Amino acid sequence: MAKVSLKKAAALLLEQDDIIILCHRYPDGDTIGSAFGLCMALRGLGKKANVLCGDMLPRKFSYIFEQLEPMDIREKYVVSVDVAEASLLGVLESEYADRIDLCIDHHGSNRLKAKHHYVDDKAAATGEIIYQLLAPLGAELTKGIAISLYTALSTDTGCFRYSNVTARTHQIAAKLIETGIDHSAVNLVMFETKSMARFALEREIMSGFDFRFGGRMAIIVLTNEMLERHNATDGDIDGLSAMARNIEGVDLGIMIRETAEGCKISARSSKAVNACDFCKLLGGGGHPAAAGCTIKGASVEEARQIVVETAEKIL
Amino acid sequence: MAKVSLKKAAALLLEQDDIIILCHRYPDGDTIGSAFGLCMALRGLGKKANVLCGDMLPRKFSYIFEQLEPMDIREKYVVSVDVAEASLLGVLESEYADRIDLCIDHHGSNRLKAKHHYVDDKAAATGEIIYQLLAPLGAELTKGIAISLYTALSTDTGCFRYSNVTARTHQIAAKLIETGIDHSAVNLVMFETKSMARFALEREIMSGFDFRFGGRMAIIVLTNEMLERHNATDGDIDGLSAMARNIEGVDLGIMIRETAEGCKISARSSKAVNACDFCKLLGGGGHPAAAGCTIKGASVEEARQIVVETAEKIL
Repeated sequence: MAKVSLKKAAALLLEQDDIIILCHRYPDGDTIGSAFGLCMALRGLGKKANVLCGDMLPRKFSYIFEQLEPMDIREKYVVSVDVAEASLLGVLESEYADRIDLCIDHHGSNRLKAKHHYVDDKAAATGEIIYQLLAPLGAELTKGIAISLYTALSTDTGCFRYSNVTARTHQIAAKLIETGIDHSAVNLVMFETKSMARFALEREIMSGFDFRFGGRMAIIVLTNEMLERHNATDGDIDGLSAMARNIEGVDLGIMIRETAEGCKISARSSKAVNACDFCKLLGGGGHPAAAGCTIKGASVEEARQIVVETAEKIL
Repeated sequence: MAKVSLKKAAALLLEQDDIIILCHRYPDGDTIGSAFGLCMALRGLGKKANVLCGDMLPRKFSYIFEQLEPMDIREKYVVSVDVAEASLLGVLESEYADRIDLCIDHHGSNRLKAKHHYVDDKAAATGEIIYQLLAPLGAELTKGIAISLYTALSTDTGCFRYSNVTARTHQIAAKLIETGIDHSAVNLVMFETKSMARFALEREIMSGFDFRFGGRMAIIVLTNEMLERHNATDGDIDGLSAMARNIEGVDLGIMIRETAEGCKISARSSKAVNACDFCKLLGGGGHPAAAGCTIKGASVEEARQIVVETAEKIL
């Protein structure tokens, strides 16, 4: 469990061969882009390396993962990328959780057990760290690596939109684009294309928008029945809760999500309202602009009433 | 009508005082951010300078334009930023179209009459050019200038999403962010907040989605009645036509927009279909991924039928 410098992390990798790189479950652009970017860099140095993920890789990332065929390797060295804790290894947890040699991540909350840790919570994406590893590794930045790492950066920052973006993020994006990758094609797939299930969910949510307090609060609802009817997967509901807040004049946007144990409330707020204060009143917590709580045993309509009554206290 | 280098453009500005900077009508983030960024830079050099626009500046840009009070100046030198042709000066056209001294723009199609031109169509935004002017001007990059130019870059690239983004765009974004501006607050306003009219339009458009050819084509409709009923302005309909294409499986997305002279057709396509070929069949044209045409005298339902019949030929 030793923290290492970036240079030391590179040195550790250079000493090894037969390297397996683990992604987190519910794989996203950052874990996939970082893993395949690193894998290509290591193979470019003549090493054997493979990527492993406990879940199927979504088809939209095929331009990344189809660049590599699995190699026949002996798995002597285990690296994790973007994996903040053991449970996120999914089905790989029992096999690998106790034998991770090097953990590379950007989550400050990282509590994965590993022989060596390189965690940089200033990095907007783990892909930023992998880019920085290339120089001390002596690896060439190929177009294949560049498009993988660009995907990591772009997807973890909402296309350079969020507050996690730093000057360094843009500097790295510039270097990646200089290789000649078609970055806008990546963004078209990641940010402008909705699955049919997502489209159907958004349409239904929009038609059911419930504005309160003269438009200062908006409530949207997501039920299990809706998810089933539209064949929606986890990927289809990602970020839906922001829909309620992202309308001019709305200070508090609430998504009521029906779950097995009651209703999960996601609160998103403008600077005028503290979403965390709101959720604390219902036994939850979070950040000032994004918080959550659970109303156990409540139906959607019961939850709606509770949410409105609670909002009355702070709006 | 002489083309000048960036250095010469800066030299021309340094020779002058009492400078008026013109924006284009329907002002967007690039023309406003560029104009106020340049104005602040010139004032920082001790010059008198004002910004002028033929249209009201949208309130969402107040964090830019409220940085400056108008000065009492004699308007001896006229600069245009991001204005591609005289008609885009709007109500300022008659007064200024014939006396523009320096035209600064990134539209390759620029045909504004001006004594000196600096047009760089490789720049993703005119804001990129204004940033590059700072050094030869000897102007300091203040936070006020940085947030203005960041807005220009971000809004003209869909937040660094489109193919007009180059490595230079990201390099400049890095420099702007290094000043400590709250770039994510800009993006929240520009990309995540919908006006109530926009929300209502999207909701109505979504409920009326018309999928054809097994989902390969989607048609959406925008009528004058809808615009009136929702009190929509031009800013509210910007980019709506992309909604039809941005769904998985849709190769050709069509927006039928009712106009005084018939129906305007906007076609957006995936790589599998050529939107320009489609529009040419109806007497229009454009780019492979985005094209348009007008069906004169047609009602929305007549246009829909014509569009479907035409699509049959290419899908």
